[in-house]
Parts: sequence; C-alpha cells; structure tokens
Amino acid sequence: MESFVKKAFFPFWQLVRQVSNNLFITFIAVKPISMVRQYIETNQDRFLAELYDLIRIPSVSADSRHKGDVRKAAEYVRDRIKEAGADKVEIKETKGHPIVYGEKMTGASNPTVLVYGHYDVQPPDPLDKWITPPFEPTVRDGKIYARGACDDKGQFYMHIKAFEIMMKKGLPNCNVKFMIEGEEEVGSDNLGIFVKENKELLKADVILISDTSLISLDQPSITVGLRGLSYMEVEVTGPNRDLHSGVYGGAVANPATVLCEMIASLHDANGRITIPGFYDKVDELSAAERQAMNKAPFELQAYKNDLEIGEVYGEKGYTTLERTGIRPTLEVNGIWGGYTGEGAKTVLPSKAHAKISMRLVPHQNSKEISELFTRHLLSIAPPTVKVKVIPHHGGEPAVTPTDSKAFKAAASAFEEVWGKSPIPTRDGGSIPIVALFKKELGLDTVLMGFGLDSDALHSPNEHYGLKNFFIGIETIVAFYKHFGN
Amino acid sequence: MESFVKKAFFPFWQLVRQVSNNLFITFIAVKPISMVRQYIETNQDRFLAELYDLIRIPSVSADSRHKGDVRKAAEYVRDRIKEAGADKVEIKETKGHPIVYGEKMTGASNPTVLVYGHYDVQPPDPLDKWITPPFEPTVRDGKIYARGACDDKGQFYMHIKAFEIMMKKGLPNCNVKFMIEGEEEVGSDNLGIFVKENKELLKADVILISDTSLISLDQPSITVGLRGLSYMEVEVTGPNRDLHSGVYGGAVANPATVLCEMIASLHDANGRITIPGFYDKVDELSAAERQAMNKAPFELQAYKNDLEIGEVYGEKGYTTLERTGIRPTLEVNGIWGGYTGEGAKTVLPSKAHAKISMRLVPHQNSKEISELFTRHLLSIAPPTVKVKVIPHHGGEPAVTPTDSKAFKAAASAFEEVWGKSPIPTRDGGSIPIVALFKKELGLDTVLMGFGLDSDALHSPNEHYGLKNFFIGIETIVAFYKHFGN
Repeated sequence: MESFVKKAFFPFWQLVRQVSNNLFITFIAVKPISMVRQYIETNQDRFLAELYDLIRIPSVSADSRHKGDVRKAAEYVRDRIKEAGADKVEIKETKGHPIVYGEKMTGASNPTVLVYGHYDVQPPDPLDKWITPPFEPTVRDGKIYARGACDDKGQFYMHIKAFEIMMKKGLPNCNVKFMIEGEEEVGSDNLGIFVKENKELLKADVILISDTSLISLDQPSITVGLRGLSYMEVEVTGPNRDLHSGVYGGAVANPATVLCEMIASLHDANGRITIPGFYDKVDELSAAERQAMNKAPFELQAYKNDLEIGEVYGEKGYTTLERTGIRPTLEVNGIWGGYTGEGAKTVLPSKAHAKISMRLVPHQNSKEISELFTRHLLSIAPPTVKVKVIPHHGGEPAVTPTDSKAFKAAASAFEEVWGKSPIPTRDGGSIPIVALFKKELGLDTVLMGFGLDSDALHSPNEHYGLKNFFIGIETIVAFYKHFGN
Repeated sequence: MESFVKKAFFPFWQLVRQVSNNLFITFIAVKPISMVRQYIETNQDRFLAELYDLIRIPSVSADSRHKGDVRKAAEYVRDRIKEAGADKVEIKETKGHPIVYGEKMTGASNPTVLVYGHYDVQPPDPLDKWITPPFEPTVRDGKIYARGACDDKGQFYMHIKAFEIMMKKGLPNCNVKFMIEGEEEVGSDNLGIFVKENKELLKADVILISDTSLISLDQPSITVGLRGLSYMEVEVTGPNRDLHSGVYGGAVANPATVLCEMIASLHDANGRITIPGFYDKVDELSAAERQAMNKAPFELQAYKNDLEIGEVYGEKGYTTLERTGIRPTLEVNGIWGGYTGEGAKTVLPSKAHAKISMRLVPHQNSKEISELFTRHLLSIAPPTVKVKVIPHHGGEPAVTPTDSKAFKAAASAFEEVWGKSPIPTRDGGSIPIVALFKKELGLDTVLMGFGLDSDALHSPNEHYGLKNFFIGIETIVAFYKHFGN
C-alpha cells in the first residue's frame, strides 16, 4: 500500500541513477556490503534481462490460444532452474498446462524447502488501458511494467536467483525443491492431482511462496491468512433469439434486466450477502484479534485518494482492513449481454451473462459455497427466463502458523535485511493451493511476498518495483541462512 | 406474426417449386393475371439479383469502419432509381451519411407521393448466431436471409421496382419523389436537417413508407401508430483502475454491481417504470379503443412457444398487444463491464456500462424523457461511484390518420390485391422521422409495411419472405392507381 501509507525511508539501498532502459543501480550501504548483496549488484542487469525474457512470453493460462506460449514459459523456467544448479529438472505433464520441477539435495540432515510459484499470468485485457504493451517489460519510475511482472513471474524468479547465489557461494544448508506451475490463475486443478500423486517427491519441511504483498517498503509483513475462492458464471436466457426491442420490448422479460435484478438482490442494505447459509461457517474473530488487526498502518483518506473514489463501501460494522482481511465477499468480475458496440442497437437480448466470485474466509468451504450460490440463484430466477450456473474454480481459505521454525526464520530474515520485524497480516487474495498443501502434504506454508497492493495485479499496468525484486532476493537468501543447519 | 397466428391460406399466389438458390416461382392466379403481376413474374430473377447486390454492401451506419460501404450503398440506390426512370437523381451530402434523392414529375395536377426509406442497416452481431453470413443473401424456406433483407433494403426496394413497372407500363398518375437515407438506424439527425432545409423540394401530398410489419400474410394491416424512442448510454465508474478483487473486493464499491442495482430499480414489482414523471404525458386509451385493439388475432401460447419462454412479462393490467402497442417501455439493449473473456479473471472492474432505450407513446416527448431519465439516474447514484449518462438518439411517437385519401387508397390497394381489408394496428417500433415529417412538412405518412414481426429485425438471421417482396410491389402499384388521378 505504498501510495497510502507514509512514504518509506528505505534504509539500505538507494536508487541513485536510472537512465531510460539502460539501468544503473548503485547501492549505498549503511553497513558493509554483504557478499550476497555484492553478487546481486554485479549481476543485476543479467537478472533483469532473464526476467524480461520470461515476461515476454504471454503465458495466459485462461486463454486456449496461448497454450503454446504457456509451454514455452515452462521450458524457459526449466532451463533457468537447471542453469542455476538444480538436479532432476524436468517438465511434468498434466492434463492441462505443465509443472516445472527441480531439486537440489544438499544433505539428508538438512531441512527441505519446497518453493512454489506459477509462471502463468492473468489475461492482459483491457488492452487499451496499458501505457506500454503488457508483454514488453518497460521500466518507469523504478518499476517494471508488464503482465506478470509481480504476479507471479517477478516474485518466483527471485527464488531462482536466490538459489543461484547460494549455489555460487557454497551456501545452501537446506535441500531445495522447486515446483512452478502454469495453472494458478485458472484454479490449479492439475497441480492438485500432481500433489496427490507425488507425495514422496514433494516431501519437505515447509512450503515457501512469494505471491503476496508487503504492507509497504518501510513496513515489512508476512501474510498469515488467505481468503478462499468460489468463481461462478451465470447465464440468463430469455427469448430464444435476440429480438427487436420495439416489437417485443415491454412484453417479454429482458434477461439483462433479470440478471441485474438477481445481482442487485445478492447484497442487502448493510452490504451483507443474502445467500442463505453463506455466513454459517465464517470464523468470527475475537475483539482482541480485530483490534490487533486494525493496528496495521492505514489511512482511509489516502486510500480513497489513490483509487479516486468518493466513499468506500462494504459490510456494515467492519473496517476496510477487516472487509478485505477477515470477511467473505461477493464481487461481479464481469457482466455482458446484448449490444456492446459503437452506437445504438435496439435489441432485446436473448442472453445475459455474469462472472461472479466469492472470497471465502476460514472455515468456509469452496464447494459448499458454490453449491449454496447455485441453489440460491436458481431459486430466485423468475419463470420468465432460464438460469444456468457454471462453477469455474475454487480454493479453500488458509491460515498459516506464526510459531513455526520456518515462520521465525522468515521473520529473522526480514529483521536482518530490513532492520525491522515483519507484521503478520491477512491478505484478501487467494492462493487456493496453500490449503491443499496442508491437507495433502501436511505442510505449512510461509508466504514471503514482496509485492505491494498498489502493484495493479490482474489490472492494466501491472508492475513490480526493482527495489522489491532485488531486496526480495537478498531476504530469501537470508531465510535459508536462518532456516538451515 | 406469421408463426403464432393461424397459418395463411395465401389467396393469390402459391410457391410451387424452389430448387436451392435457383428459384422458380410459378404464380397460380385465381383470377386473370394482371399486367403488373405478369411483369413481376417475368422479371422476378432480375429484381432479386438487384436486391441481393444491395444487400451484399454492409452499410452499417453505426460503425464508422463501414463508412465507405454506406456510401457505396447510396451510390447503388442512386443508380437503380435513375435506371428505373426518375429524374434529378442525386446523392445529397450531409454531415453524416448521404441521402439519395430522385423524382418523376408527371403532371402539375397529379398528387405527389414522397417515398421514404433507408439503405443503412443495423450491425450484424452476434455474428456466430447467423446460420449463413449476414451480408450474403441466402434463400431458405421461401425467405431471403440477410441483414437488411427486410429492414429496410427489401422493403424500400419494392418501391423502386413498383416505380419501374409504372414507368414501363405508362402508369404513373402521380408525381413520385424518392428520399432514401443512410442514418435511420442511428437516429436520422442529418435527415432532420435536410428536411428543414429542403421544404420546397420535398413538397408532396403524402409520405409513403414500407418499414413496418403486417399482422400476417392472411391478414393485411396498416400501421397507424408508432412508438417514439429515447436511447441512452450509462457509464458507472468506481475506482480509477481495474482492481484485484481479492485485495480490494468487499471494501470498494463495484461499478458493475452498482449498475445492476440502478437498473433493477427502474421497474417496480408491477413492471411499471419508476422514473418520476415518466407516465405524466402518456395518452391513456379509452376502454373501447383498448377493446378494439385486442381484437387483433393473437394466441398467447403460440407466442410463448415461438420465443421458447415460460411466461410473458410486462406492465400489470395490460395485455401483450397493449404492452407493445400503447404502453411506453424501458429495455436494457446492452450491458458490459469487467472481464468477459474465456475462463476466470478475478477483477473488480473500474467501469460498467449499459445501453438503455425507452419506447415512447403519444404524447410523450423524447427530449423530455431523456432528461427525466438522466436526472433520475444521477439522483439514484450512490456516493461510492461516478455516473455519466450519454443520450444517443431519440424520436417522437406518431399516430397517422385513417380518414385521409392516402390511407383509403392504401386500404383499397390491399383489398384489390389481397382480397381483404387491412386492419389498422399500432406498432411497437419507432420510425422517428414520421413525427418530423408531420412537424416540418405538414405531411401525414402512410405506413404500408410488408414485413412480419417474426422477420428477426435487428437480430441474427433477419429475413424477408419472397412472397412479401413480390406481393408488396404489386400492392404499391395498386396504391398509386387508387391515389392518383
């Protein structure tokens, strides 16, 4: 939330000079430059060039036209992991997009870290809103602008570079396993199958993921809670063909209007979701927990200014941080029907559609919520139309422990590199696979993310700070130091 | 309404044989074949070939990419009117698409008929719903399938062919003027200016238009009422950029949801429009008038079967015929926002849009209604979003007299050619220019349309019956016979 918390005094590194795309970064150290930082400084141009080549591959998993690109990205990731020094590096086929696996076993007594990331990205549209093309990384104002710059190419690539440093400098005191998938943005269904079928291969002590955000560059944080997801599509059919709105308008139910009425009815006047049973299993936090949560730095006016909105909106009785952290939500992600082109067309559409997703909190269950949603939508459909509900993908909410050895190692890494203790936070987003890792592998996850909420993930002009990328690599190396033997 | 009234016994002509696209039509006359019908029969292949060439030009006025095609259509119409024997045939430039004008003055004492039509068409999308390409006319089951086949290329082209027949056979006992425009589907703004600036040129006794529907092929009708139109676009803006629905969902108002809530609120539980003042000027018909109107043949179950809907919908207290004939309506013609592509994208959109149009009845005023709509939408917008309302185009409702010489001539033409008196009907659609002709030129219009409500105007697979086309030409010639000296 860089833009709406107090501006950072960035304590270690300082960006001195940046000349167009030819980037010179000089680090002014306030303490002697570490061997790790020295290595990053020497190799920064190559690190970025490699990341840019990965970003240039439009690996949009949701769009079947990009199937070849998704594979190309997998092959690129495989080659870079191999190059960095891992063994058994290979592409694991699935029914969908492939998974890249690689490992470095350094000693039977060493703890094992399983690094998870995803090389697939969200679709880039609306394309006309991008200042520079989504798949041509461009540096502006110290940030890499591109689809996937942060989510998750820029973030998981830090792990490959941290691994390279450890290999070059003889540092690895942990076993390291990489599992980088290509279907995170479409629900990770095939990764779920892969995990279930490869429990021996994936044996580890902890999962390490960088796919979340920091509070800000001057306040590090570690995500300890993630919301789950139920993503649904609703199709409302009125007449069997598009009709002339003059000839039939007023006498035949308009599916777009009916869809609007159904969507409007999904929230009550207090911003609560009206689906029967929706809140039944929601984990209600204690007053003390809520109080602790609201201590995170947050300025409402700066938040509103950043988004250029007059008022915030949400469930009555909860703060903005609570609304995105501990409360379940329902959002329209897309809606369409009828004539959407230039000018005017007097049509009464045959069909209208919406993509609607719900974010879930502990202990809601994605499958149950999807069923409640479907049942409710069918029950409120008027007899003038036909309604079809299609579930897309889902994922379970997750909470990670803060008393594990791995969490403590992550906290120590932040303290060492940033000079500040990280605050545990709950993220509004979802990484459905975290709950699956716990269930299938019995492993907890450390969510060591280096993005910012303002990085425009899933939006036009997604970006990732160069500072975040480089300090992330250093912090990851420090994590291994504190976690390993 | 061919498909939901009793099947026609077509009294004069009968389609005997149709072999793929090579069409043979044999007319079995129940009375001696007239000279006019003989001419049509001899020239039917050429008539169709000419119409098909016109249809093949994708003159979509709403889409600026088709500007060149619209002009090509104008030039084609000019050449055909000239060829048929008119004088002073030329393309009249406007600020938008051009108007084709031509005339044949046969005598100062003869009455003058001003034929109006439009050579522009609605956009063809959704393209994937067309069985055959929209701009490649294809005959199936005795009907020409193509965009513009009926609205209005097929219909106005009958007038050019009727004129050709009269010229060849030495029949014209009227002065004939043609005014065929290219902006009917986008509001006829420039025709309005042209009419105001060319009152002398356009002097006439009556306007004759074929751009409406018959009840059925066994029950001719003449449209005597048309609804007006106010076509609006609404844009709702929430945050200044698309957001990650996990990070911001539940804390920031979703413009798609807000738009749905606003649209849902525009009708009450009785199907009445909630915009304050909307019904103030609506002309309420007497019980006797309503009773007469409901005598038109109509079968509700056949209507529902044809559209494959479970129930009809509309304003409480009115029949289906009344809902489309004498009541004003409000329809969503298009809605869009957020991610509408394949798969799932967890975005909280920055903007959502809708195209909404209202059909107006006498004595509602399009400008007033557009203002009431705009004011109401802005008044119900919550402080969490910004709402913009953009008027597209409008037109006034119209009622035409049934006691004029021209109306009686049209009725006689139907009686002569069809052997049945036409029923006066009120159409749900709008031809905004009719009210303008009355206001600026002081002229009444005869709406002698030969389409059917089931012709899928403005929809995929628009079509026009070959029977309708040929009998229309004959009926138009008969109109001149009864109207002229």
